[in-house]
Amino acid sequence: MEKGSKQWRFKERKDLTFASDLTIRGMLKKLNRAIDATDPRPVIQLGHGDPSAFPCFRTSPVAEDAIVDSVRSAKFNGYAPTNGILPARRAIAEYLSSNLPYKLSPDDVNLTSGCKQAIEVVLSVLSHPGANILIPRPGFPSYEALAAFNHLEIRNFSLLPDKDWEIDLDAVEALADENTFAIVIINPGNPCGNVFSYQHLQKVAETARRLGILVIADEVYERIAFGTNPFVPMGTFGSIAPVITVGSISKRWVVPGWRLGWLVITDPNGILKETKIVESIHGCLNICSDPATFIQGAIPKIIEGTKEDFFKNINDILRQDSDICYERLKGIDCLTCPHKPEGSIFAMVKLNVSLLEDIDDDIDFCFKLVKEENVIILPGITVGLKNWLRVTFAVEPSSLDDALGRVESFCQRHAKKQ
Amino acid sequence: MEKGSKQWRFKERKDLTFASDLTIRGMLKKLNRAIDATDPRPVIQLGHGDPSAFPCFRTSPVAEDAIVDSVRSAKFNGYAPTNGILPARRAIAEYLSSNLPYKLSPDDVNLTSGCKQAIEVVLSVLSHPGANILIPRPGFPSYEALAAFNHLEIRNFSLLPDKDWEIDLDAVEALADENTFAIVIINPGNPCGNVFSYQHLQKVAETARRLGILVIADEVYERIAFGTNPFVPMGTFGSIAPVITVGSISKRWVVPGWRLGWLVITDPNGILKETKIVESIHGCLNICSDPATFIQGAIPKIIEGTKEDFFKNINDILRQDSDICYERLKGIDCLTCPHKPEGSIFAMVKLNVSLLEDIDDDIDFCFKLVKEENVIILPGITVGLKNWLRVTFAVEPSSLDDALGRVESFCQRHAKKQ
Repeated sequence: MEKGSKQWRFKERKDLTFASDLTIRGMLKKLNRAIDATDPRPVIQLGHGDPSAFPCFRTSPVAEDAIVDSVRSAKFNGYAPTNGILPARRAIAEYLSSNLPYKLSPDDVNLTSGCKQAIEVVLSVLSHPGANILIPRPGFPSYEALAAFNHLEIRNFSLLPDKDWEIDLDAVEALADENTFAIVIINPGNPCGNVFSYQHLQKVAETARRLGILVIADEVYERIAFGTNPFVPMGTFGSIAPVITVGSISKRWVVPGWRLGWLVITDPNGILKETKIVESIHGCLNICSDPATFIQGAIPKIIEGTKEDFFKNINDILRQDSDICYERLKGIDCLTCPHKPEGSIFAMVKLNVSLLEDIDDDIDFCFKLVKEENVIILPGITVGLKNWLRVTFAVEPSSLDDALGRVESFCQRHAKKQ
Repeated sequence: MEKGSKQWRFKERKDLTFASDLTIRGMLKKLNRAIDATDPRPVIQLGHGDPSAFPCFRTSPVAEDAIVDSVRSAKFNGYAPTNGILPARRAIAEYLSSNLPYKLSPDDVNLTSGCKQAIEVVLSVLSHPGANILIPRPGFPSYEALAAFNHLEIRNFSLLPDKDWEIDLDAVEALADENTFAIVIINPGNPCGNVFSYQHLQKVAETARRLGILVIADEVYERIAFGTNPFVPMGTFGSIAPVITVGSISKRWVVPGWRLGWLVITDPNGILKETKIVESIHGCLNICSDPATFIQGAIPKIIEGTKEDFFKNINDILRQDSDICYERLKGIDCLTCPHKPEGSIFAMVKLNVSLLEDIDDDIDFCFKLVKEENVIILPGITVGLKNWLRVTFAVEPSSLDDALGRVESFCQRHAKKQ
């Protein structure tokens, strides 16, 4: 056999590499490589979606205890049923029903390996040759990556910065055609930090009904709302159009690495059952991997045992962070935050490059910022808006203040001379 | 809006329901529904792949302690890097290198949500329009389900019962064409309980090289070998043809519900890197969900801390179970086990329906058996062989004896009168 000249019959899937490049992980990896290790100041990460490393965001001891009890019981070392163990599904059904106008059944709940697998499943289940899906811009790039992976056509509608990042519903109606099967909404908003009003969500449901499509409601930041609008679950309007809600314990309990999410059918009229979408979801879950069983086993204690104080404290810190972020940004000429964040952990900030001397765009801004200031911010293009920035404010308030001070110096240093 | 007459634009994916029906989970669910609740005898499960519920198969306290320490440290609540955290990848690389002729690097190791996600990833990454894959019959139906899901053509080659379930390599050569990209081997064998010899594995590698395809080596039962042939990892022959090894802690540590697996590049010539398959794997992992970070955090202690005694004890029980299984089956006329199991936790048993009065086939046998004897065995058709049975012998030895006694009575009761 001649070595080297050998013809191998497998080949790379270029579309996967392409889809992967769309992810936030990919961009953050590149930015982290640009860190100046000689800078004595600590690196401050304002690009992530994961505040768990900060002591002030440590999860509730109730959650840790629940995991310990579950693993010590040795009752949850084996495989779980396809859609998850019943006590966990029951606890989640009750938890989510607490702010819905009807009661979810445990059978409406499917456990997934984080919210991400819930998104994977819903996009796989609904993809058909020629199908398209409506996705917000700015948005969460995993949707684009997974849609690309599933060969789904993506049609982007805008969120409107001047209208508190509400959905441009006229654009939605204009974009949809007979091959559109769903609209994705993310509420509380990633990356905009907005919280949709009851009235706006009702309009979304009515639009979906008119178009004959379902609503995929990404509520991974559910109840992380600390401003004027209270969080209203999209399932509230499940009787207008069927809703598939995806979520997880990742954000509210600050344990994104625990990989425990859910895909919930919020569809009181049973349309998704009738059209056999529910059956397809079970089929997909049957083929795919599950969340760890002993984490499922801990869910009833985690959900029922965590005190309101824990959540209040997290939301209080986030409100304080949001204030710091909004106020400090006001003092930076080239940056504008059109809407003070009142939910999730992100702010979208407009970058006016024309006020800067040697910055080409948002990507250039972020790479120069990390090199000069050891601060990481995500370029807006990663979430679909060129010359914007996505700022994560979920860090220790003092670090946030420090980081935004560095951003201010950076902007002053690069400002065009008048 | 008229209710009821509404035209919705989403539809089920029938191929998913079809793929799902191929799974063992689907069949076991149906069999479990047929249990006679009025029978006072305990149900004995010989259909599963998960002995974790039996006290004699409880995992090592080292593993439980490692999880507790990891979650208590609060260091692993956040997202992990795409391919897993370095200390876990390093521990797995060292563990797997211990019986390889070369040393794996931590970069060769990718952590996955159980071995199942590793299979998902490798099939996704290598699927192309028109591509086909060689899969053993009998085999593990997840391969068929995931191949169907990825629209890959499946070509089955036989394992030969009269040759210790070795691969029919002539058939492999005849089946492959220019669109074949890989051969799957499962060693130790699921469902046959065989362990391939060094010489046979070398021939597999040479065949793969001749065909220009890679070997996907499913070694989820690695080192669970208690007969004559020692376990030899396929990666031993990675310099002949590139090998992707999938495995997990599920079987050897008896924690299938912990969902911690790996996809390992055992390819000392770097062909998978050169052909960018490695890049595609990272791309796919980047898009998909990860195994729980704190379980990753526990891996170094689990792997380095578990005493040899633990593994020896498990293999000793399995050897005893295999003996009981083989000896008791000899006493049942209509059942033949062509090869005494010496690895994994399964035996394939041939069913001679012509000796039975009112049994149509393996499915009929298994449904009548559960109804009359409260014993669950998997029909062979589920793993690709009609009129065979897959018997899991990994239960408490006394229960195994009890169950096979019930099988014997059942067979005697249904035997044709001479």
